[in-house]
Amino acid sequence: MTLTGNLLIGQRAVPGTEAPIRAIDPATHQPLEPAYPGASAEHVAQACALAWAAFDAYRETSLEQRAHFLDSIAGQIEALGDELIHRAVAETGLPPARIQGERGRTCMQLRTFARVVRAGEWLDVRVDPALPERQPLARPDLRQRQVALGPVAVFGASNFPLAFSVAGGDTVSALAAGCPVVVKAHGAHPGTSELVGHAVALAVKQCGLPEGVFSLLHGSGREVGLGLVNDPRIKAVGFTGSRSGGLALLHAAQARPEPIPVYAEMASINPVFLFEHALQANTDALAQGFVASLTQGAGQFCTNPGLVIARQGPALQRFVEQAGEHVRQAVAQTMLTPGIFSAYEAGVAALAENRNAQTAASGQPAQGPNQCQAQLFVTEARAFLADEALQAEVFGAASLVVTCDSDEQIREVAEHLEGQLTATLHLVDADLASARALLPTLERKAGRILVNGWPTGVEVCDTMVHGGPFPATSDARSTSVGTAAILRFLRPVCYQGFPDALLPQALQQGNPLHLRRLLDGQREA
Amino acid sequence: MTLTGNLLIGQRAVPGTEAPIRAIDPATHQPLEPAYPGASAEHVAQACALAWAAFDAYRETSLEQRAHFLDSIAGQIEALGDELIHRAVAETGLPPARIQGERGRTCMQLRTFARVVRAGEWLDVRVDPALPERQPLARPDLRQRQVALGPVAVFGASNFPLAFSVAGGDTVSALAAGCPVVVKAHGAHPGTSELVGHAVALAVKQCGLPEGVFSLLHGSGREVGLGLVNDPRIKAVGFTGSRSGGLALLHAAQARPEPIPVYAEMASINPVFLFEHALQANTDALAQGFVASLTQGAGQFCTNPGLVIARQGPALQRFVEQAGEHVRQAVAQTMLTPGIFSAYEAGVAALAENRNAQTAASGQPAQGPNQCQAQLFVTEARAFLADEALQAEVFGAASLVVTCDSDEQIREVAEHLEGQLTATLHLVDADLASARALLPTLERKAGRILVNGWPTGVEVCDTMVHGGPFPATSDARSTSVGTAAILRFLRPVCYQGFPDALLPQALQQGNPLHLRRLLDGQREA
Repeated sequence: MTLTGNLLIGQRAVPGTEAPIRAIDPATHQPLEPAYPGASAEHVAQACALAWAAFDAYRETSLEQRAHFLDSIAGQIEALGDELIHRAVAETGLPPARIQGERGRTCMQLRTFARVVRAGEWLDVRVDPALPERQPLARPDLRQRQVALGPVAVFGASNFPLAFSVAGGDTVSALAAGCPVVVKAHGAHPGTSELVGHAVALAVKQCGLPEGVFSLLHGSGREVGLGLVNDPRIKAVGFTGSRSGGLALLHAAQARPEPIPVYAEMASINPVFLFEHALQANTDALAQGFVASLTQGAGQFCTNPGLVIARQGPALQRFVEQAGEHVRQAVAQTMLTPGIFSAYEAGVAALAENRNAQTAASGQPAQGPNQCQAQLFVTEARAFLADEALQAEVFGAASLVVTCDSDEQIREVAEHLEGQLTATLHLVDADLASARALLPTLERKAGRILVNGWPTGVEVCDTMVHGGPFPATSDARSTSVGTAAILRFLRPVCYQGFPDALLPQALQQGNPLHLRRLLDGQREA
Repeated sequence: MTLTGNLLIGQRAVPGTEAPIRAIDPATHQPLEPAYPGASAEHVAQACALAWAAFDAYRETSLEQRAHFLDSIAGQIEALGDELIHRAVAETGLPPARIQGERGRTCMQLRTFARVVRAGEWLDVRVDPALPERQPLARPDLRQRQVALGPVAVFGASNFPLAFSVAGGDTVSALAAGCPVVVKAHGAHPGTSELVGHAVALAVKQCGLPEGVFSLLHGSGREVGLGLVNDPRIKAVGFTGSRSGGLALLHAAQARPEPIPVYAEMASINPVFLFEHALQANTDALAQGFVASLTQGAGQFCTNPGLVIARQGPALQRFVEQAGEHVRQAVAQTMLTPGIFSAYEAGVAALAENRNAQTAASGQPAQGPNQCQAQLFVTEARAFLADEALQAEVFGAASLVVTCDSDEQIREVAEHLEGQLTATLHLVDADLASARALLPTLERKAGRILVNGWPTGVEVCDTMVHGGPFPATSDARSTSVGTAAILRFLRPVCYQGFPDALLPQALQQGNPLHLRRLLDGQREA
């Protein structure tokens, strides 16, 4: 299809009227056609009005209808073929194989949520039958199900132009829950967004759903983004991006006459703890694994290992030398956007100038525009504890090794950390006692704790937690990756004394949806 | 036991040092001994430090230990005997039978949560076993459980001095989740609070738990209340009370460097819809049931029916006449506090002076101080839609009948409502179509929808939703009554690649807690 530069307001492709956004190929620093004029306040209002109009009907679509819709989106995305790959590569500087893999992940994610919708466990149906003879008061018949929150504003992420953008994790979990979605496209990949948006809109049409189920707007965060969050018809927000961006949306959402939930996935430096015996036993393998995780995708993962914590000594010294060697061999990679590249450069420069941190190694220099030169720094625990600047996220392939003089100091460093998406432990049996002592702290600090792995690589499954205490996310009670992400967009409603004819299907006496209900306190088999 | 007027900081009874609070017997308007000097900032910090120190150990108590603790609290409350009843009656003006009933409900609630803790379903254990052979990438072993958020600040409610106060719904669900609790006692019943607080502290001691699991502070909302919410060691807030009080805590919690969840149950007028055929068939019974619900407990329930909506016509006219007759016979009842009484008087005066509302009936005049004279007002839908003041909650036995000229106008009034704890429908079979048309609106507006009942009376069970969209609560995704209230104080943590020896018991391979896990996508039988 020919890219038009239009907005998608329901089924209508409409040219924006505000300042245009134009993607830049970060590998060449050249602008890409077409321009994407921004949505006006009127466009925002139109998209929200359509979403609102669609809400009551969409949230009561059958499980099969909704699952089929998600499957159809996957099919439509696959039908875009190589055009999607080419455009995403041009807009992100990511290699084609990565984009192909990400397309696979995106479609798998859509189909996974289709299965989740069909299974219906998320409805969490509960039934407490009437007890008319109970003394001193009869109990009425009481039933509970989960209902969708309402239209959701989704903000695409720059670093997953498919898997966490227009039809990514936030969108699919909101749609699965029964929420219409209005996406604000990320300005770094508007063409990719248009292609995927078109695929979603086609699926909406083919499935005969109300058009307001999905809209796609281009424009600035300040105008279109805050416009969406401030619209009274929007009832929740999904966001992946910077701490400042997430906080701006969070504050706007909280200042509304009716505050709404914001699921913002923001900043995390993903500490890696190398325990004494594991470090001694596996120094070289750890150094290699660490740098592979650090430099993967130019370090542009939310779960990039930005911090390594271990006891000082010969083993750690060797680890730093070996990791430094791998870093020095690391080829510079194109970053997603010129903005991300300059933020990386600024972050690295701040560390290089910080007298509390020493540069241990730098990667191969850049060969083209916007290329990330990997960096490894070292600091001492005492300095780390005293200098908050050393805890700032540097988005890209930079990491800081913190040398500690005791297990107790390792614990102190861990306690000093802000909330994290992940914490990683490398250990052998002889380290178990040390790890066990640290675990309570890590459980308070992180959404996912890994043993003998690396934090990059996030499974889409039932157990995944891609979340964590503030500022990793704005709501630690949830995950944005994995099937539990659907729970973010639901709320419980209790139906008391309803005649069967008035009950929603999920709650009817005959259990026509064959759900495993919590019946009178017992989960049905 | 002799009331001391002390704070309870862990196991230590400490005299407060700030301005004292003294309960007033609302029936006599006389102050009650002793005075309760307020907690200082230092006391707040001490209680939070103890709670923090207790947290890691308390959240890993075994299910049986924690359940036994909740059962022990119930036993200790019962052991207080009549002293608790006498003091609560004196401090609230509520009749002894009501307080006895509420004590039963409170202890039943504690024992219900003990059962919930033992069953362990709230841990929501999920296991995705490793797939070492998977292509292109192996899947690591992934496990998820829920962990407690951290110490919780609980604000007791005035209208349930036992069931939603020191050892009430918020406290028991937080303790069940594994969160230490710091209670700010409600200033209206400090003596009742001291007695119950002493019971909880005894249970803490008997169960050998760390003392910081529970503290009880007296003092002002502005100082002790905001002091608690601003303490970095507090990780969530439970509150039941006024809209202004709830919003003040919500805003403080959001302005913290680390924002935290606030579960504030605030304002609700609980609309009752009388459908045409039901109203015609059962006019007199509906009028009688309505006024019984309206005047119960001087109307001091969060779910009091403050709004009645129906089509105008002879049946509604007769309903208003009949309800007016019952209201005129209603004896004035002592309200909980002089403050609540004057707010009620002001709310009623505002309605009486509002030219959009007519007084239909007034109850028996007061015979003593702080007595609530029931009031029934009538207005037209058009006026209601135009005048936001008519939607303000009047806490007490006052209600407003809104007369509509069509089903469509009923829907318009429903759409115009703010979020509610409850919405009630009275209907017969011939009304089903009208009810069905209104249901989507009500599902968006309320946490609980009742058919042919009255909203006062809230079951403690698995299906209950005592919650609802803003401003009914600050977080519509939750309930403060019923077993699902425990979910408010939990967050998921994912354990990846853990050796069995390092896993928490709930997640170990052998499933030693015999939980029904979500294993590889299937719920275990």
